[in-house]
Amino acid sequence: MKITFLGTAAGLPTAERGLPAVLVEVEGEYILFDCGEGTQRQMAKAGFSLGKRMNVFISHLHGDHVFGLPGMIQTMNLLNRVHPLHIFGPPGLCKFIQSTTVSTMSEPTFQLAVEEASQGEVFSCKNYRVEGAWAEHSRANIAYRLTVGGSRGTFMPKKARRLGVPEGPLWSRLKGGESVRLEDGRVVEAAEVLGEPMPGRVVVYSGDTRPSEAVARLAKGADILIHEATLSEALLAAAERDGHSTASGVAKMAADAGVGRLILTHISARYKDPAVLLAEARRFFPKAEVAEDLASYELKI
Amino acid sequence: MKITFLGTAAGLPTAERGLPAVLVEVEGEYILFDCGEGTQRQMAKAGFSLGKRMNVFISHLHGDHVFGLPGMIQTMNLLNRVHPLHIFGPPGLCKFIQSTTVSTMSEPTFQLAVEEASQGEVFSCKNYRVEGAWAEHSRANIAYRLTVGGSRGTFMPKKARRLGVPEGPLWSRLKGGESVRLEDGRVVEAAEVLGEPMPGRVVVYSGDTRPSEAVARLAKGADILIHEATLSEALLAAAERDGHSTASGVAKMAADAGVGRLILTHISARYKDPAVLLAEARRFFPKAEVAEDLASYELKI
Repeated sequence: MKITFLGTAAGLPTAERGLPAVLVEVEGEYILFDCGEGTQRQMAKAGFSLGKRMNVFISHLHGDHVFGLPGMIQTMNLLNRVHPLHIFGPPGLCKFIQSTTVSTMSEPTFQLAVEEASQGEVFSCKNYRVEGAWAEHSRANIAYRLTVGGSRGTFMPKKARRLGVPEGPLWSRLKGGESVRLEDGRVVEAAEVLGEPMPGRVVVYSGDTRPSEAVARLAKGADILIHEATLSEALLAAAERDGHSTASGVAKMAADAGVGRLILTHISARYKDPAVLLAEARRFFPKAEVAEDLASYELKI
Repeated sequence: MKITFLGTAAGLPTAERGLPAVLVEVEGEYILFDCGEGTQRQMAKAGFSLGKRMNVFISHLHGDHVFGLPGMIQTMNLLNRVHPLHIFGPPGLCKFIQSTTVSTMSEPTFQLAVEEASQGEVFSCKNYRVEGAWAEHSRANIAYRLTVGGSRGTFMPKKARRLGVPEGPLWSRLKGGESVRLEDGRVVEAAEVLGEPMPGRVVVYSGDTRPSEAVARLAKGADILIHEATLSEALLAAAERDGHSTASGVAKMAADAGVGRLILTHISARYKDPAVLLAEARRFFPKAEVAEDLASYELKI
């Protein structure tokens, strides 16, 4: 699994930082978190192909997180993309995609599915699953938890028989993680008949948010937490007013949530050098890092 | 007057070429032709400020020429822009701006005026004027002629009196370039009472177009013609089908139109090295050039 920061700026792009987008590559598929203006060009610079399988997860509908979508869709069209493109995000996303593609006639020739998401499970497939939690910002904003390669424990038929569960549909439901009620009224939990689960690798992406308990819960035990840290603690009042986090606020939360690695992004244009953010984060999370455009992080699945 | 190419790609951005935008700086004001995705970031890279006086002239509503507008407007908002922003372009522009700014709530706090333009005079102010002509593309497309610093000849009162034109409103109309009819029925042309006109400096920008007589007329005698040259002559059929020009087609037209300098832009992503386009253009226009991103050209006013 490879995580590449395509854009690490906050609302204003700079010569050094493009607008927000993070691309995770898993088994040759792409998972894109946010799609700020310029994302398709950053992808070209980093050598990613717009023809590959990809799902997009949008945190919120502020322009700096979505204005790369119409151009990316148009370019996929020009390139005769074959794979469908699924885009998930908060309410309003369908209207945004519809109005921007229709008004410039770049309505896609490939299958484009736009799904308005909420908290809880947003998407799952063979290789990964994504859950959401409502973050706290000035607009409806979803933080995402990506789990790659995790699996439920192996089903143990002997145990199921011993508990009196007859082979058939009830076994399937237990394998799927559900609990089942037997004819005699007893309830058998999946955990009773499944081996040790494989936890998988977990990456949590925050979008814009002030420090949020829901995001903290979502980040619990994550291998990597990618979190906005727009401002330093010196600008706490502005951060609170605008629904943003400070570097130390995030670092405290990350330490409490027991994440393995903390990468700060969404860096305000005022910090030509993000050293001040890094220093204050490291007081609470000694290995905190600040993302740079086109930097990649590998994570073994 | 300084002309800076912010993006020189055709529909697909590459690592080397951003999407179309050309910025002309005149007396500290900006005149922007097209605004492809990523324009605001290219402006940051080139050191241009989004707070300055600026008018934008859009050639047509294909995404690669306009998808930089919503983000630029949002950034101007974040920066508390004071000056109004005027955007001119073909029909459909108002709807595009309206739908993209409203759906992401980046409706501007400064005065944003969007004007659907046509051929003929599009805009004029103290420092410059802009005329348009319909180019030939798969969508309504305007080529623009920018004249900077030109003026009509000085009015000569003696000559006017000698021709029997009474001082007053008729003098004003002659100064403005009109012809007037005197009481005795004679017609006096402005040229008879005005000195040698100052031609001004002329830059013509094509947008996407197949070779077009209207664009050729618009370019007549221009100091600089900036023209799309998406493809080489080897792909003439594709160029004709998609409403684009080949490098040699443009060069022939530029030579016939007697322009001073020809700069080719809107270079297809297939040309990693545009040498083939340059070579074929130079057969007909020996000093033809191919624009590169962030290259600037000075022109004395």
